Amino acid sequence: MHDEQITPSRSELSLGMKEPMNILFSIDDGYVEQFKVTLYSLYQNSDNPELDVYVLQKQKLAKTVEIQKFCNQLEINYHPIIIGERAFEDAPTTDRYPETIYYRLLAHEYLPETLDKILYLDADILVTNDISPLYDLEINDYLYAAASHVNENGLVDIANKVRLENYQAKTYYNSGTLLMNLKKIRQEVKRQDILDYIRHNDYRLFLPDQDVLNALYGHKIFQVAEEIYNFDTRYFTQYELQSKGYWNLDRVIKETVFLHFCGREKPWLSDNPRGNFFDLYKHYQHLVAKMEC
Amino acid sequence: MHDEQITPSRSELSLGMKEPMNILFSIDDGYVEQFKVTLYSLYQNSDNPELDVYVLQKQKLAKTVEIQKFCNQLEINYHPIIIGERAFEDAPTTDRYPETIYYRLLAHEYLPETLDKILYLDADILVTNDISPLYDLEINDYLYAAASHVNENGLVDIANKVRLENYQAKTYYNSGTLLMNLKKIRQEVKRQDILDYIRHNDYRLFLPDQDVLNALYGHKIFQVAEEIYNFDTRYFTQYELQSKGYWNLDRVIKETVFLHFCGREKPWLSDNPRGNFFDLYKHYQHLVAKMEC
Repeated sequence: MHDEQITPSRSELSLGMKEPMNILFSIDDGYVEQFKVTLYSLYQNSDNPELDVYVLQKQKLAKTVEIQKFCNQLEINYHPIIIGERAFEDAPTTDRYPETIYYRLLAHEYLPETLDKILYLDADILVTNDISPLYDLEINDYLYAAASHVNENGLVDIANKVRLENYQAKTYYNSGTLLMNLKKIRQEVKRQDILDYIRHNDYRLFLPDQDVLNALYGHKIFQVAEEIYNFDTRYFTQYELQSKGYWNLDRVIKETVFLHFCGREKPWLSDNPRGNFFDLYKHYQHLVAKMEC
Repeated sequence: MHDEQITPSRSELSLGMKEPMNILFSIDDGYVEQFKVTLYSLYQNSDNPELDVYVLQKQKLAKTVEIQKFCNQLEINYHPIIIGERAFEDAPTTDRYPETIYYRLLAHEYLPETLDKILYLDADILVTNDISPLYDLEINDYLYAAASHVNENGLVDIANKVRLENYQAKTYYNSGTLLMNLKKIRQEVKRQDILDYIRHNDYRLFLPDQDVLNALYGHKIFQVAEEIYNFDTRYFTQYELQSKGYWNLDRVIKETVFLHFCGREKPWLSDNPRGNFFDLYKHYQHLVAKMEC
């Protein structure tokens, strides 16, 4: 045995070669606390928590210093991306769907050109397992990877497809977790197409950005398992029943990566105290709050 | 300003002077996984996780190497305390209440004499906040600090007091979390008293060690709040209702230190998938499992 002859192991080599993961959010100042919970849970439950975090924002967030400090504590590289006031003046907005949610559709115009891929996450998500199986996915010519939220029955699915007239798409995707193949997106996703579509379909859009994504690009989305990559916490019981018990609590805890607190009842709203995984969410929220003491 | 004149701040001084906390468990090989979840959650949620962990065991646990490795990873000092086969031959035991649960009653005989206090924990507990407010409590002439589990109505309370004939005690205590004032215990808690009591009351003991503790020493237990220091997860709804909403989920997440999964339904049993805080428990169980990969 030659003790002197030390060569790096395969895992050391791959560890050394591993690049930081790019994560994308799109928030306003009202969602900073939730963003921090999502990011903290992602950091804590990742095997390779070397992160470049890009945050799309209309104007520079008032809480920038707070975010920067938070990211410093976790050694996360924070990259604010300022979109400006006038980028989406023509797009329909409501209180429930602020202008910011459009940003992900044209994120590639604002992100550095050096990025080949990025993982977009809504800020109402708790990350409970390592994201790299999704992040490392090679989706080739697909523009995006995402999950559908309509497996409980085909009706919503068909209704949405008819409504949005994209018969080529297999399903209707939820855009809350969205792996972006930026190289291909830069070639195929065009601002003019998106603005035209919104202008012509304004009244038909329930969830404007998600609808646009499905209508224009639904057939170019690689479908991943919603139970793992976009678990709608409201439907835990349905997931478990439909899968004949496969997606029980044990399985969700061990395998689900993104718990998505969809709908109007959120774990951070004090008037909605109970819900599936609300305790787990609140525990992480509490850990973030303690970090800042 | 004199930059050279650096003196330690108050917090640095107290940090430096802080002694490791002594934690006590009593388990057999069938409870090692649960013990690790309790200990890991205690470690993760403690501000001063410098820990000396003592584990009472009949024979040297078969999983000693596994425990030692686990403690090494967390930089916890592991102290196995072997009780031996013949220490409690006369005590009543059943499948549900193995001989090991008696050990806490006479732990002071087996622990190093240098220890002044120790915090005993059942291994079906999840620690979700810093334990030091309880650990640092100065209980003077009391033997123990513990919580009662009978605030929902006085009936169980009175029934247990009558059954155990300790009218001096204010209530019936749960012995799942037990701060031990070892100095006083060494003076007042006598093996012969305990064995005599068990021998004379064998048929009346439902939860033998807890009953003995209450019967002989109930009046020398300092009562702490069960919602913080021994939260019976089965009764979350009752806690919330009785407190007129004070003990809602937010409060429990922020203030409760010990979530105690009392009763037969445990989060680690695959045939009991749902229950209050089962997801939080399972998440920690999963974190421990990942640690060992």
